[in-house]
Formats: sequence, C-alpha cells, structure tokens
Amino acid sequence: MTTYRAEIYITLKPSVLDPAGTAITKGLQQQQYPGVEQVRIGKYIELTLTAANTAAAEAQVERMCQEVLTNPVIETYRFRLEGEG
Amino acid sequence: MTTYRAEIYITLKPSVLDPAGTAITKGLQQQQYPGVEQVRIGKYIELTLTAANTAAAEAQVERMCQEVLTNPVIETYRFRLEGEG
Repeated sequence: MTTYRAEIYITLKPSVLDPAGTAITKGLQQQQYPGVEQVRIGKYIELTLTAANTAAAEAQVERMCQEVLTNPVIETYRFRLEGEG
Repeated sequence: MTTYRAEIYITLKPSVLDPAGTAITKGLQQQQYPGVEQVRIGKYIELTLTAANTAAAEAQVERMCQEVLTNPVIETYRFRLEGEG
C-alpha cells in the first residue's frame, strides 16, 4: 500500500450566488483595495490516504468528493494527487 | 491596468488542531473509506483584481492575505497569480 496526498479544491458553481464572497469583495473595495473585482470563497481539503496504486487512490478520492465532501447540486471540485511512496 | 486572477489557499498551521478535519476523517474511516489517514480543512479563495503590473498585483494580494483574508496567528497561506490581460 502506498500513501497518497490529495489536494481537493471545492468551489461554488458559477451560477450559484456567493454572499460571503460578495461581502468580502465590498469590504476590500471600501478599504484600501479598490482594484478588487470579484471574490469567491471555496473550500480546500488536504487528505492523505493509503491505496494499492494511483488508480485506486484516484477512484477513492473521486468517490469521496461525490458522495461526502461536496454538494454536487451547488458545488464543483477538482483535485490533484501525489504519491508519497 | 491589467486584470489578474489569484488563487489563494489558506490552511491551518500544522500545530493548530482542526476539529472539523478530525470529524471528517473519522466519518470517512467509519464509512467506506478505511484508507483515509488525515483530513485537514482549509479555505480556497478565487479573486480577480486589476493592477498596473504583476508585481503590483502580487503585492496587493500579499497585503490582503496578511491584513484581511487570513488570521496569521493560526493560518498560513500561499497563492498563485495569473495575468488575464
């Protein structure tokens, strides 16, 4: 079994409103950052797991994302996987 | 002025406990993912801004991270910047 490290990025779909992001955008603009145009907030998950090989690790992460870690109605995800040997 | 896109990854420092991550780790292990070893939850922010050049954009994002977007006592950040110009 090899240990893998996955970096998972979860974002709201473009069609979904992001009130927290809008609030931060306005806050930044009103302070000292007039150049800020848009802010969208997502989640970032670092996960280590053991699996027999890269394909198995990838399949597991994919399944976790779909079934547990994201809400597929409003969120999308992508991930990067690294073997740690 | 050029438009830049920054991807900011904010994570808890390794010494800081992450109760949400621990809960997700245990939940995944007890369900169908025994291979999961550790999960740590962070934030992912996508930000677009206009700036005169790459160095200026980078300095702005750096300052926003330090002053507004993160809590430097418990969090660390890194970011990637892309010009869209």
